[in-house]
Amino acid sequence: MAGVLWLLPVALGETPWKNYLPAATREAACRLTHFVAENAKTARAELKRIGHPVPLRDLAIEELPATPTPADVERLLAPLRAGHDIGLVSEAGCPAVADPGALLVRRTHELGLVVRPLVGPSSLLLALMASGLEGQRFAFHGYLPARDPARASRIAELEKESGRLQQTQIFIETPYRNRTLFAALLLNCRQKTRLCIATDLTLASEQITTRRIAEWNAALPPVLDKHPTVFLLLAD
Amino acid sequence: MAGVLWLLPVALGETPWKNYLPAATREAACRLTHFVAENAKTARAELKRIGHPVPLRDLAIEELPATPTPADVERLLAPLRAGHDIGLVSEAGCPAVADPGALLVRRTHELGLVVRPLVGPSSLLLALMASGLEGQRFAFHGYLPARDPARASRIAELEKESGRLQQTQIFIETPYRNRTLFAALLLNCRQKTRLCIATDLTLASEQITTRRIAEWNAALPPVLDKHPTVFLLLAD
Repeated sequence: MAGVLWLLPVALGETPWKNYLPAATREAACRLTHFVAENAKTARAELKRIGHPVPLRDLAIEELPATPTPADVERLLAPLRAGHDIGLVSEAGCPAVADPGALLVRRTHELGLVVRPLVGPSSLLLALMASGLEGQRFAFHGYLPARDPARASRIAELEKESGRLQQTQIFIETPYRNRTLFAALLLNCRQKTRLCIATDLTLASEQITTRRIAEWNAALPPVLDKHPTVFLLLAD
Repeated sequence: MAGVLWLLPVALGETPWKNYLPAATREAACRLTHFVAENAKTARAELKRIGHPVPLRDLAIEELPATPTPADVERLLAPLRAGHDIGLVSEAGCPAVADPGALLVRRTHELGLVVRPLVGPSSLLLALMASGLEGQRFAFHGYLPARDPARASRIAELEKESGRLQQTQIFIETPYRNRTLFAALLLNCRQKTRLCIATDLTLASEQITTRRIAEWNAALPPVLDKHPTVFLLLAD
């Protein structure tokens, strides 16, 4: 009897598990002894946070490479074929969204095995809900190019498509570059375009603000450096 | 002191709240006495399910029109200005995503008031996680046209864009038309395109299957009629 691949969301930052996980998600995680993690260190911190009943040193936690090869995928899924359930965990939030975990899920389907997604926090989804931007059509684009002129032209392209399709554009940046991306958005977007900045979601320091570019230009800049932030824009 | 707009996810179907809500989300919902709901009847069912401590008849539950006017938005947000917190709830899943609630959220930002999104189930996000399709780039398109030839050409367009951008395309249909949409996808997509069918998410009857179109053509058709289903495709 083959195992099941459980998709386990994890915390977006330091906060007790009752704030971000249903009891059923925690219970499913506590029953597992095999994990594949984007980052083994943060996975151990999460298992400690939820009070996993097995000592951490007795759990099998394998790391998922940033670009897994087919051989990596086979090796990481081997416990499934041996009848063990596996928990897939991301560095933060929901696995297989904005991380390399989808390849494991895809292979599990190819093997005809069962995938069970569990409810938990997603910074992208929380940001979209709270943005007030178009929720009936939206797209996530990952990271924008890190430098101009590629970044400026990508911003212009996303804004143009947003207006044409009436689609919210969602993107992220490595936290130490958030301030630069914010400045580039003010510089390259039209004054009427709406920009939502969603920082530290689910944490006590959560800040979510949606303003038109003209209003952002007139306001104090948000505190973004080193704070996980989701950027969303909607052109008029 | 103005109130806060809380975004409260609700069940995707009949299941106990501990399966899909963090304790913190339930507690926030239980503290509220003013609600704006996409559907007042399903909102009352949810408040009963989570054991709201106030009798339902003593709660203010206003319905959100399908296309709210600016006057509707002002009226529905009036309790915020009077100092009451409001809970915004969708018919299923997360508010302001794939429903008209975003306009209330947008106006709350314009008023400079606080929006607090809470963690809970989203069929779109659970389907994306569990699909194994591209999670680093994806777009949600709402409903496709209900009839051919518009539906067939929209499917071809989404498939072409999916291949060009390596982007997962996510869409939904009213449950009684799910079977027709599934047939149209088999007819109009390329044999190598991957299609995920995610049905009854978070329920005991949950079914999530990803196959290439050629494999779907060779398999028994899934049971979709009247079951809430998310469709996802990724072209090669």
